[in-house]
Amino acid sequence: MSNINDIAKQFVEYYYQCFDGDRSSLAPLYRDMSMMSWEGTQMQGAKNIVEKLVSLPFTRVVHKVTTIDAQPSLPNINAVVIAVTGQLLVDDETKPQQYTQLFQLVEDSGFFIYNDIFRLNYA
Amino acid sequence: MSNINDIAKQFVEYYYQCFDGDRSSLAPLYRDMSMMSWEGTQMQGAKNIVEKLVSLPFTRVVHKVTTIDAQPSLPNINAVVIAVTGQLLVDDETKPQQYTQLFQLVEDSGFFIYNDIFRLNYA
Repeated sequence: MSNINDIAKQFVEYYYQCFDGDRSSLAPLYRDMSMMSWEGTQMQGAKNIVEKLVSLPFTRVVHKVTTIDAQPSLPNINAVVIAVTGQLLVDDETKPQQYTQLFQLVEDSGFFIYNDIFRLNYA
Repeated sequence: MSNINDIAKQFVEYYYQCFDGDRSSLAPLYRDMSMMSWEGTQMQGAKNIVEKLVSLPFTRVVHKVTTIDAQPSLPNINAVVIAVTGQLLVDDETKPQQYTQLFQLVEDSGFFIYNDIFRLNYA
């Protein structure tokens, strides 16, 4: 499964580089069929998802990834499920927040995000 | 997606009821093709997965679920991705540990676990 792990690591690095740099640059990673749950709010489609991400109430954000786990998804489909745990720091806050994000990537010309679930972990 | 959410809620309740009661009773929820990543260690197949779960070094464990998010997985397949965040308390510990668990359920006669990724969230 080393190839799966490489795909996951490259994707996760690229995703948060885009997220922390310019959230609108995430649009090409989603499709019309993509789904996102953001802190319990569900939306579908690249346009709605990126509108939500761009509208989040912070200007600066830095993600620091702690763990990445990846597994091949269903047989006969080129898809990968990825679970990320990490910390993020927004604007002038000094205390990082723990978060978890789950992705399912599906391959067409490249990999796009089919499922995306984000949660902060409150202690 | 209410049906998806009902399936997820019922599954998660049942899963941790089995886990906290008798871990060997989780065996029917996995198949030979099932995959688990437990704190970064990967294994495949109901037998290997349940052996790992039964061998975990605690006698008593209580899971307390904080959030459950579910989305339909790939088109044309009856599958559900579920992300759980919560806390668990083992043996005589008094400080709960935060955890995250991701499942992908696939339907055959009932739903079984195809993907399972577990991580503790360290602050």
